[in-house]
Amino acid sequence: MKSSFQAINWTGSSLQLLDQRRLPQDEIYLDYTDAGAVAEAIRDMVVRGAPAIGITAAYAVVLSALQHTTTSAGNWRQLLLQDIQQLAAARPTAVNLNWALERMQRRLSRAGDAPVDALLDEAQHIHQEDIEANHRMGEQGASLINRGDSVLTYCNTGSLATGGYGTALGVVRSAWAAHKLARVFAGETRPWLQGARLTAWELIQDDIPVTLITDNSAAFLMQKKQLQWVITGADRVAANGDVINKIGTYQLAVACRYHGVKMMVAAPLSTLDMGMPSGSQVTIEQRPEAEVLELSGQRIAADGATAWNPAFDVTPAALVDYLVTEAGVIVAPDTAKLAAFHRGLPSV
Amino acid sequence: MKSSFQAINWTGSSLQLLDQRRLPQDEIYLDYTDAGAVAEAIRDMVVRGAPAIGITAAYAVVLSALQHTTTSAGNWRQLLLQDIQQLAAARPTAVNLNWALERMQRRLSRAGDAPVDALLDEAQHIHQEDIEANHRMGEQGASLINRGDSVLTYCNTGSLATGGYGTALGVVRSAWAAHKLARVFAGETRPWLQGARLTAWELIQDDIPVTLITDNSAAFLMQKKQLQWVITGADRVAANGDVINKIGTYQLAVACRYHGVKMMVAAPLSTLDMGMPSGSQVTIEQRPEAEVLELSGQRIAADGATAWNPAFDVTPAALVDYLVTEAGVIVAPDTAKLAAFHRGLPSV
Repeated sequence: MKSSFQAINWTGSSLQLLDQRRLPQDEIYLDYTDAGAVAEAIRDMVVRGAPAIGITAAYAVVLSALQHTTTSAGNWRQLLLQDIQQLAAARPTAVNLNWALERMQRRLSRAGDAPVDALLDEAQHIHQEDIEANHRMGEQGASLINRGDSVLTYCNTGSLATGGYGTALGVVRSAWAAHKLARVFAGETRPWLQGARLTAWELIQDDIPVTLITDNSAAFLMQKKQLQWVITGADRVAANGDVINKIGTYQLAVACRYHGVKMMVAAPLSTLDMGMPSGSQVTIEQRPEAEVLELSGQRIAADGATAWNPAFDVTPAALVDYLVTEAGVIVAPDTAKLAAFHRGLPSV
Repeated sequence: MKSSFQAINWTGSSLQLLDQRRLPQDEIYLDYTDAGAVAEAIRDMVVRGAPAIGITAAYAVVLSALQHTTTSAGNWRQLLLQDIQQLAAARPTAVNLNWALERMQRRLSRAGDAPVDALLDEAQHIHQEDIEANHRMGEQGASLINRGDSVLTYCNTGSLATGGYGTALGVVRSAWAAHKLARVFAGETRPWLQGARLTAWELIQDDIPVTLITDNSAAFLMQKKQLQWVITGADRVAANGDVINKIGTYQLAVACRYHGVKMMVAAPLSTLDMGMPSGSQVTIEQRPEAEVLELSGQRIAADGATAWNPAFDVTPAALVDYLVTEAGVIVAPDTAKLAAFHRGLPSV
């Protein structure tokens, strides 16, 4: 199964991003030639999803090299490093952004004075490897699911959030293709409604029927025994297996454990942060209150109300039943299992 | 502390309802002289909240008596009973609607052939008794709260949902007035956004600062130890203490138990259904999918998506720490405690 759209496109001289703020009403591609503008696009969520913002930032480094080697031959390297810093600061929680930028910097350091081709090659590798990782995660995650199970996915972890295919949504796609799934539920994912706007849109394009639920009704669905799995992505996985992901993931994990529903997290290796001992060290991005108080620019809350709007939360590893990566599945992840798993990986 | 508005007003010849679908943007009162139109207003949620729809239905019986004794002297009683049936069917889950209509019918059966004054007296008693019950619940609920605690309230259980003052929101009002509360959080309560639109509006009118959260972030607030109480109302309490209330209440109760946060349910005696052994017997109202898929008539979800939209859920009594009524507090309610409590009540 293949998505009919590409959220991130390299045109040869510019980067095109499908504006995810406007979906599903409008399919508009924005064109970028400036890395600073891409950083702003990441901050404003033109593009979002941990793997997707890593890939986007990698292409932005190519744009920066193109621009500065052409116009500022004397100090292009300094300007490029400034752009990389700006990109790295665009969103603080997901680790893929830093991971991708570090890969680009390593390639840059070996690239000499005409780095554009090498950097583009690296960005395209990052992009392509992500798609392949998603397909491997999809197969491995789907193999855990029993025929007739129903699943709830959360936020958007599909082609829009990745290089293509998706992490958790890749698992859903693979399980659906294998005729395993009775029903696919999607949590609408307030405040940005990634589930209602983006995940539903992707699933419908693939002819996978989807039932939306409000985020507050997942536990009731579990109480009624309508759900066997919650499957989410991750913006960062700490060395002990704690999962940092979209706000609401933790509440779902608590409800899963209470009801004996299985919690699967699909996270590519680029999401693993072995340098962070546990989730309590992460910086949780606070997004503008207006995301909660308004919708499409229209006020929905009473005037005078304030809002607490953390974009992510931390799910302790103890609540994660399966951590699915492209290199294998870790059952009930913890520090020792993750360390052993990491030691067994081929070095990058 | 007194609210500056009345959601339900008897004018002498008509019933005025504050249109809760339009709040907080517009404060519009709709005028009713016909019981059938009131039944539709209840169904469409011009007025909502279990106690408020009971009171509204009681006044609608007065309207029906006024109309039919004037225009159909021969068979007014039959027409009135038809209206009562229509009102009773307007919303299936809350018990207050039936409770109020049964009180009106008992009064009717003693009222002879000019029943309007007697019925109006009964409706006004139901209304006034509800306000008094709320104040007593407010005091008793607030007495359980420690100084410096923070609370999350959910849906809208204030003056808009009752005769005035509120059930759970009455507890919040009383605890705030007693200078006990560090912070008041309100869950936005998708899909109808009663928390964002109505509860925030009421609290701001009372100068009580309110912080809205998306419904998916309550558990994270608990994990961060920012919350000591969740306080909700009830649309029906079964004889074993199971609480039927706004969808999302159960998920909050599960998160409370996991974190050791206390769960308080403020429910007037009119909400107690001693004839229903447990919550599993209740009819859960399914509301239109459009409530999830659209907002203010604008589509928010991808075309082709369907939605599951139960208006209520069932919280097992075992997850309720305190059931607060106007006649006393039941700690960790169960069938035996509720039966003993009920036997001790003065008969109506």
